[in-house]
Amino acid sequence: MKVCIIGCGSIGSLYAAHLARVADVYAFVRRPEHAQALNAEGIRVSGTHEFSVRLRAACDPCELPAFDLGIVCTKATQTREAVAPVAHLFRQGAVISAQNGLGSEEIIAGLTGGYVIRGTTFMSGTRHSDTHVQYELDTATWLGPFEATNTPFALVREAADLIMASGLKAEALEDARPAQWSKLIFNASVNSAAALTGLPHCRQFSDESGPSSLGHLLHALIDEGKRVAAALDIAWHEDPWKMNCLGAETDHPPSMLYDVKNHLATEIDFLSGAIVREAKHAGVPALLHEAMWRLVKGKEASWTLPAS
Amino acid sequence: MKVCIIGCGSIGSLYAAHLARVADVYAFVRRPEHAQALNAEGIRVSGTHEFSVRLRAACDPCELPAFDLGIVCTKATQTREAVAPVAHLFRQGAVISAQNGLGSEEIIAGLTGGYVIRGTTFMSGTRHSDTHVQYELDTATWLGPFEATNTPFALVREAADLIMASGLKAEALEDARPAQWSKLIFNASVNSAAALTGLPHCRQFSDESGPSSLGHLLHALIDEGKRVAAALDIAWHEDPWKMNCLGAETDHPPSMLYDVKNHLATEIDFLSGAIVREAKHAGVPALLHEAMWRLVKGKEASWTLPAS
Repeated sequence: MKVCIIGCGSIGSLYAAHLARVADVYAFVRRPEHAQALNAEGIRVSGTHEFSVRLRAACDPCELPAFDLGIVCTKATQTREAVAPVAHLFRQGAVISAQNGLGSEEIIAGLTGGYVIRGTTFMSGTRHSDTHVQYELDTATWLGPFEATNTPFALVREAADLIMASGLKAEALEDARPAQWSKLIFNASVNSAAALTGLPHCRQFSDESGPSSLGHLLHALIDEGKRVAAALDIAWHEDPWKMNCLGAETDHPPSMLYDVKNHLATEIDFLSGAIVREAKHAGVPALLHEAMWRLVKGKEASWTLPAS
Repeated sequence: MKVCIIGCGSIGSLYAAHLARVADVYAFVRRPEHAQALNAEGIRVSGTHEFSVRLRAACDPCELPAFDLGIVCTKATQTREAVAPVAHLFRQGAVISAQNGLGSEEIIAGLTGGYVIRGTTFMSGTRHSDTHVQYELDTATWLGPFEATNTPFALVREAADLIMASGLKAEALEDARPAQWSKLIFNASVNSAAALTGLPHCRQFSDESGPSSLGHLLHALIDEGKRVAAALDIAWHEDPWKMNCLGAETDHPPSMLYDVKNHLATEIDFLSGAIVREAKHAGVPALLHEAMWRLVKGKEASWTLPAS
């Protein structure tokens, strides 16, 4: 089975390394030196799992064959530019979006014309170099058919089986939207609050002891997200508030905090922005996610100002 | 007439210099070198008005007489520590709060036991040194009785007349709350948005061209503030949305943007926090100001983290 991992950050490197043990894996990456390093050294996984593996990598689509399965692991903001050059290689195959938020599936489907699978992962890792990734949270990837491409459930199950055979956790779901929305609501709330306050995911996010405590805002954002999901007839799979309370013990810096500190485009359009768009479709308000969306967009705009 | 200016930042320096031309003015300041410089050199005003004037200054309350009038010009966060040491000098006099937001009047009244006057000013200046301030916006100080101290309107008028005699603009109002709330709603909305986005008061604040445009948030914050004022039977004096649209042409950095860049305590409790408290009294929601309050408090908390 030929598998292509599109984007090899920490999540992409984890999929690539594990799957290379059970399938014919190619990594499609942006930087030539990244492809060279992967071809020369393979990937070393440390932490929760420990092994090294060889695989093929390319930054030129001409070097790649047609694939049975793709996993897109770029930031949601990079989906179009990453998938477009290789889209023709997935006409007969299926592509999983393992990305944050909502909206990447639509972009991928528009580019490949093939089957798309909704993927939501809670795996986490730390990327130490182009060829070394540390595996941390050993949690499942939830997979389900993307409705608009009528992806057969058998295909979803096949992808889940392959991921499990590689040593990672996966779960095939008839409807992956509850899982995706649980993570969407969690991610939109926690990432935007971290980006605007400068705080990592810390105790303040679950603190509701005083009237100005940040935990009240997180609670209100999560409740608002749940109301939007309910209006779309989507139940949540895991409670985002409980996910927030657990995460608040970790002091983990959410990716959007890294982005704003480094003046990188954030995924806010695919997180808070996606909740606002879905709320509009459903005809319900999303006042708070709308506020967070506009504030983070304003923050992005501030980077273009002359330094003061 | 003996007048004490408490706090000589740009606004305090402007009041001190102008009033020293028509009254016996003392400046009460925190830093000994500031008092020494003022005693040695007086204050030079440049810009809209041009003059130099002598006055007395002290950082030791023992060097100060009893006063007929005080004007508190510190940041709202510093009201208590600034007024407490000299509070006994105002038992027979009146004290104007020329500070941002709501809540300083209550603190001053609790300390002095004398009359308090609500003051709201739109004057602006740039402080070039301890003894040189540039006068910019030549706009009125709105004055009115603080209800809780039953301040006679004659006293308010007397204070306004003195300020006008000094060359500044002032207006005595039977009820200064509409003026104060106009500036409160404007200030709470613009300052918190600037602090969280990192943007100065620029075009984005009035831009409502796209769904994620920041202007929508400013409009919603201002409308929410107006609804709180209406629930308290307070009409606004000038429309804060129009004030925002005018200000958005200036690229002026709001004071809270300066505070967050320099990791200084902000006035958020006296701005967004005050709107939230008043909304609670009135029994109406203030979801957005509550969100801004909690986000800025979270931002303040982030400064105590180890640098990353």
